[in-house]
Amino acid sequence: MSGGIDSATLAYSSLDQGFEVECLTILYGQRHSREADSARRVSEALGAPHKVVDLSPLGEILSGSALTDAKIDVPEVPETAEHYDTLKTTIVPNRNAIFLSIAVGYAVSIDAENVFFGAHSSDRGVYPDCREEFVEAFQASERLATDEPDLVIAAPFVGMEKADIVRLGVRLGVPFGQTWSCYKGGMVHCGVCSSCRERKRAFIEARVPDPTGYER
Amino acid sequence: MSGGIDSATLAYSSLDQGFEVECLTILYGQRHSREADSARRVSEALGAPHKVVDLSPLGEILSGSALTDAKIDVPEVPETAEHYDTLKTTIVPNRNAIFLSIAVGYAVSIDAENVFFGAHSSDRGVYPDCREEFVEAFQASERLATDEPDLVIAAPFVGMEKADIVRLGVRLGVPFGQTWSCYKGGMVHCGVCSSCRERKRAFIEARVPDPTGYER
Repeated sequence: MSGGIDSATLAYSSLDQGFEVECLTILYGQRHSREADSARRVSEALGAPHKVVDLSPLGEILSGSALTDAKIDVPEVPETAEHYDTLKTTIVPNRNAIFLSIAVGYAVSIDAENVFFGAHSSDRGVYPDCREEFVEAFQASERLATDEPDLVIAAPFVGMEKADIVRLGVRLGVPFGQTWSCYKGGMVHCGVCSSCRERKRAFIEARVPDPTGYER
Repeated sequence: MSGGIDSATLAYSSLDQGFEVECLTILYGQRHSREADSARRVSEALGAPHKVVDLSPLGEILSGSALTDAKIDVPEVPETAEHYDTLKTTIVPNRNAIFLSIAVGYAVSIDAENVFFGAHSSDRGVYPDCREEFVEAFQASERLATDEPDLVIAAPFVGMEKADIVRLGVRLGVPFGQTWSCYKGGMVHCGVCSSCRERKRAFIEARVPDPTGYER
């Protein structure tokens, strides 16, 4: 659970479907801890246990991303265009495979069979580890690694747009005002990084009020 | 690189085959740091850069193993029999998938295409993430996760017995006296945990002198 819109809605939706939910947040040397604070608040609102694992030294070896390297600026992006070259500086190499494999280890430890992953289709263009083909291959690999043939890596949003997730979240009562998307760590969302652009656009497309305060 | 016989020999063998070698050691909340000290000494002997990443908080969530949980005793095993039920307390859930996914992230960061993994056939009975089927599925999954179709997860020892690895290591000049296998963290190898048993047996079967000092 990053503390953003997708993982918050996924937790609410999983609980709504009858699963017993535990939230896992991994610190990996991000530039800021706003996300983890949001994850804690969302988990509290949901009434679900929340585990935070501090693996900050990961940031030292997963270099080259603006999300972990303070020497690289978080890119500002224009309102509409899709600037893949710019967005590529926000790729943390292999991040989701790393996080998911840790989540699987935790799942086995607590005897859980389902690991939920909030990847969605708006991410798939830029982030290869948000694609359905990856999720399927990863599940096959993890079933072998753990000898747990019933282990499920579920990515129920993988075919949805972010606006669909926002609509679902509103229906489920997700406290979106508590979530955090911005790649920078200011007092309010910057409004111009790629993640803020996506967030803004999702609320507009979903035609629901955006509770977020943006700097720009 | 754990600092044991397999990863030390793998590093020497990879260099011998012409690869430029970087060693990665991950601390995951083990009961002791003898392994990491050994990994550092072996890397120095080899003349290869060595990166140690401290992810000790992993131990808090990957519970239920004698390797990370001080409340569970490291089992002593008899000299010959294969006691799978006892050995199962030394399984750290999903450990190799976690370590390998981190190694892949590091490989992408430093522009390396090959990740070497020291799994061998003596481990496959107990540890599902040491099996060739897992390595193949994992490679397929990681090629998708990173969009690197040439990424190779190589486990060249996967069909070898530990005694074969010892023989290869002797030929390559691996400083086995600097390596560490024992699951306990004493001054010398305990001689009776499953890992010490394997180590002793490998030297005997390889018919080469064992430089290890054992307590028992």
